[in-house]
Amino acid sequence: MYQSIPVTQAHITGGFWKDKQDLLRLVTVGAVYDRFSETGRFGALSGVWLEGQPKPHIFWDSDTAKWLEGAAYLLMERPDPDLMAKCDDLISWVCALQMEDGYFNSYYQAMEIENRFTRRGDHELYCLGHWIEAAVAYHQATGKDELLTACRRYVALVDRVFRVERSAAFDTPGHEEIELALYKLYRHTGDPAYMTLMRYFVDTRGVPGKDRTPAHFGGSPLYLQAHKPVRSQTQCEGHSVRAMYLYCAMADQAAEDGDEALSAACRRLFDNCVSRRMYVTGGIGSTYLGEAFTEDWDLPNWEAYAETCASLALALFARRMVRLSPEARYMDTAELALYNGALSGLSLSGDSFFYENPLEYSPLRSRIARRIPEAHAHAAIGERVKVFSCSCCPPNVLRVYGSLQEFLYGETEDTLYVHMFASSAARTRFGAIRQTTDYPRNGQVDIEPPAGDYALALRLPRWIQNASLAVNGEPAAFENQLGYAVLRRSWQEGDRVTLTFDIPVRILHAHPRVSADAGLVCVSRGPIIYCLEGVDNGDNLADLALRIGGAPRVVMDDAFGLPIIALPGTRCVPDDPSDPDQTYPLYSDRPYPRQATDLIFIPFYAWANRGENEMRVWLREE
Amino acid sequence: MYQSIPVTQAHITGGFWKDKQDLLRLVTVGAVYDRFSETGRFGALSGVWLEGQPKPHIFWDSDTAKWLEGAAYLLMERPDPDLMAKCDDLISWVCALQMEDGYFNSYYQAMEIENRFTRRGDHELYCLGHWIEAAVAYHQATGKDELLTACRRYVALVDRVFRVERSAAFDTPGHEEIELALYKLYRHTGDPAYMTLMRYFVDTRGVPGKDRTPAHFGGSPLYLQAHKPVRSQTQCEGHSVRAMYLYCAMADQAAEDGDEALSAACRRLFDNCVSRRMYVTGGIGSTYLGEAFTEDWDLPNWEAYAETCASLALALFARRMVRLSPEARYMDTAELALYNGALSGLSLSGDSFFYENPLEYSPLRSRIARRIPEAHAHAAIGERVKVFSCSCCPPNVLRVYGSLQEFLYGETEDTLYVHMFASSAARTRFGAIRQTTDYPRNGQVDIEPPAGDYALALRLPRWIQNASLAVNGEPAAFENQLGYAVLRRSWQEGDRVTLTFDIPVRILHAHPRVSADAGLVCVSRGPIIYCLEGVDNGDNLADLALRIGGAPRVVMDDAFGLPIIALPGTRCVPDDPSDPDQTYPLYSDRPYPRQATDLIFIPFYAWANRGENEMRVWLREE
Repeated sequence: MYQSIPVTQAHITGGFWKDKQDLLRLVTVGAVYDRFSETGRFGALSGVWLEGQPKPHIFWDSDTAKWLEGAAYLLMERPDPDLMAKCDDLISWVCALQMEDGYFNSYYQAMEIENRFTRRGDHELYCLGHWIEAAVAYHQATGKDELLTACRRYVALVDRVFRVERSAAFDTPGHEEIELALYKLYRHTGDPAYMTLMRYFVDTRGVPGKDRTPAHFGGSPLYLQAHKPVRSQTQCEGHSVRAMYLYCAMADQAAEDGDEALSAACRRLFDNCVSRRMYVTGGIGSTYLGEAFTEDWDLPNWEAYAETCASLALALFARRMVRLSPEARYMDTAELALYNGALSGLSLSGDSFFYENPLEYSPLRSRIARRIPEAHAHAAIGERVKVFSCSCCPPNVLRVYGSLQEFLYGETEDTLYVHMFASSAARTRFGAIRQTTDYPRNGQVDIEPPAGDYALALRLPRWIQNASLAVNGEPAAFENQLGYAVLRRSWQEGDRVTLTFDIPVRILHAHPRVSADAGLVCVSRGPIIYCLEGVDNGDNLADLALRIGGAPRVVMDDAFGLPIIALPGTRCVPDDPSDPDQTYPLYSDRPYPRQATDLIFIPFYAWANRGENEMRVWLREE
Repeated sequence: MYQSIPVTQAHITGGFWKDKQDLLRLVTVGAVYDRFSETGRFGALSGVWLEGQPKPHIFWDSDTAKWLEGAAYLLMERPDPDLMAKCDDLISWVCALQMEDGYFNSYYQAMEIENRFTRRGDHELYCLGHWIEAAVAYHQATGKDELLTACRRYVALVDRVFRVERSAAFDTPGHEEIELALYKLYRHTGDPAYMTLMRYFVDTRGVPGKDRTPAHFGGSPLYLQAHKPVRSQTQCEGHSVRAMYLYCAMADQAAEDGDEALSAACRRLFDNCVSRRMYVTGGIGSTYLGEAFTEDWDLPNWEAYAETCASLALALFARRMVRLSPEARYMDTAELALYNGALSGLSLSGDSFFYENPLEYSPLRSRIARRIPEAHAHAAIGERVKVFSCSCCPPNVLRVYGSLQEFLYGETEDTLYVHMFASSAARTRFGAIRQTTDYPRNGQVDIEPPAGDYALALRLPRWIQNASLAVNGEPAAFENQLGYAVLRRSWQEGDRVTLTFDIPVRILHAHPRVSADAGLVCVSRGPIIYCLEGVDNGDNLADLALRIGGAPRVVMDDAFGLPIIALPGTRCVPDDPSDPDQTYPLYSDRPYPRQATDLIFIPFYAWANRGENEMRVWLREE
């Protein structure tokens, strides 16, 4: 039975991701704490709202819980008494807030406790889910179980009200998350009651007559994935974060129960996502209208919503899919999202964030959309901000990248999987494994496997070229199993496996039905998607064209932690407004003259760190 | 002094525009009348609103007045007792509505007469402007002066309240139109008081301290062109219809007064419009946010607003610019708008309309934008409708195309201008001129000029090729003056001038700063802009590419009244979802295979007459 090596058993020790985790520790965790403190999220845990204070919001508890979970992962890596004191303080407030019957929710207790469990859209169970995840992580990190105990009491109440008595005004959560959290709680405590409640929520969802679906945003149960029983769902629908959290739980349950129908649904949904509804950055949810999936092939770039949380959740779903079938494409997708569409949510400085991650940005277009504020036209922002009124993404970045080590390794009875390349160490059932690499800056990965009889399976990313394996310096033949290079042998103490490969610059095309990308290409290198920014290339990026077949120059950039890429291209010869002979007409039957230019591409995740300016991922080729 | 040959002196006798005018007479005038009657616009003229009846709206009077004006032009061409009876009936209601002091406005009298002249945004003077235009036209058509008399009494009130006493709550109209109407009234009656009031409104506009500009939509006086005195304005700003009507009045006043500063402002504004802010269809006003101009080069296609009324008004402005300087480019622009971005507002059936005229339409994108109605996301419609709640465009189509003959000819003391080619007859100061042509179906124009000593000036459209002139069958040399072929001679009775030229299919490129059109081309032939529709080319039009240098086939199409064009292109070989080997991945570093295909282009104006389907004007080339 496949298991990933959990966050408690793995550590990232160097390289790109270590730098990011250091940033989380040094900047992000404190920055998010301060913003949440200032905005009243922590004060709300008093359960009392006084006129003049910020009004508690239905999702504030989930923000706090995600911050706490992220802090717990940092504490696993390195003791920090000050950070732990902050966590303990928050937890003491939560415990004090908890009611006799187990309930706690800072919004409902302060504002309208008489209405608890009456509104499906109000995130109560979603908040509890995040409290559970935080409680498990904090227990793992510190051995302290106050929050865990509080959560178990609350879950007992939820089990009674929702599953046993069915006395709540709705049947399954409006915003999924508690399902996967219940699975985590079951795995952590071993108590099958949590698995029972999880199955109840998953299996009841969308079942006509059993799952009441009050009309919600857009009037459709699609929005919250309650349009069909989960085993009948075939396309990613509705709010993309909700969808991904549901699919995570479905994958957990399918693996736990060996449920083939549920596994098949997970595969269909994953395939629909990555083959029809995912941006090349791993972004998902192409419209701000309901933060939702739209239809197959509808992937507009400027209007892309592609919420940070949705890409993070896609990575979490993909990681769980490996448990159902160890195919490299799942971790390819997780890696894509983690290096691109999710990581773009975090500034290089670590203290500011994007909620949306469009693949094209124009200050002009955003300025125009905002000219008439009362019209509430939607437009992405071009500079990350320190806090959002709906601030789900910042602490989600903290908790997912803070536990990134959980993506690296997995194991079955006879196979040790290396899913992602990062300098790291992990404890496995076979013993300790150590990995040393500067990936994705270059393509060399050194592995020190534990001794024993088993297969070592190294993921070969889809784009890999000229991969070769050596054991103790000797070339070693390997089998490619579902995208993993598998070496089965008796490993000796001191063995060293070296995987080397090229990381080519690849020019990507989108499927012809993706009308937004018709005639356009995008530049990638390994798992990294690149973009053009105005600060490097001048404005009017739409005019730039990539020359087919041009030779790339790949140059390491310390600020970005990854190389930048220069490629030959062309741009129009600028006209001279002061000289009518050099001024092009607005429309002409003569093509405008073009000249050669170098195009500078930076990693997509690093855009918008040098002031507001134009950006685009897809560009013309000629 | 240049004058256009007025609508009373010219007639369209055959060809494309005759067919359209027949459609107006046979269908449009009645269809709009019926819709306006049903929606309460006519009943509102009672000046009484009863609970349960449709609530009068501040702009309803302008709808009625424009219909009346359009009907008057039809009556000029051909008597129609039934139509005249309808007009007389409406006019009798208006006269009955008029108050002792001259005021009449169906909204204010029914709803809040105590608030008249207090809200700049409320279209009172705009409505009066349209009543004036209707009154002049109806007087010209029938000799009946009841409405004219009513308007003159109302104008006297406005003159007193606004100019003399300055007792209204604002100084100049929020929605311009009355200025150009006052000029028309002055020209029709000869009373200089109207010219004085017109100058007052034009000259006061945007003058700090003199023109109060209460915050309006978007909070900016830009919206209503009151950000600067008119002679200082340099860019087309704000609501595009308001802007164009103001510029019309400025051009009228500049010509009337020989006002060089005002002329220069008109030229700057016209040039800004056509060289920076106009769609290739002659559409203007690129955002629905305030129905407004945005910034130079911002011409998005899917999001294009390009209101029918705005293109009509651009044509009216361009026609007035000829009076300031007889340059062919003015009528090039008028012709572009009239054949394309304005005419697309009218269905082939004559009874339904577009308010917006985007250059790209996708049922998918509109469906997605409408998924969550409460979000009020904006999206164009893909099928014309019979009436809009704001129904300015349908009667504007009626009145402008109903008086299209006014665009054809002009004269100075020694020159007779032929601006547009259409089978027609006109009375000029030199005598009767007759034109016979099948333009723009082909490039032959026969002119029978009146006898006398003068110059005949025929406009040579910008795109013309191989133009030659013959007089009585003999080749005649001509001078090209500002884009007009000028033949100065002693014309004899029976002389016949023949202009022949090629109408090439032209592939147009947009200025490189128009990012929406980067890498794209559009197909045109003569004054006609073409588009692709899904019904002819299959869906997923974005995938289609035009092959550079392909030979066009031009085939007359009776339904459209103009040729369609076939050009060679390519499309992707469709994949086969049932066969994984034939299914393209979502992203790939291999270009997707393409195959040759014929691309079918139809006139842009004729799109959306065969059911909702995809459309696009700009397409890739390869």
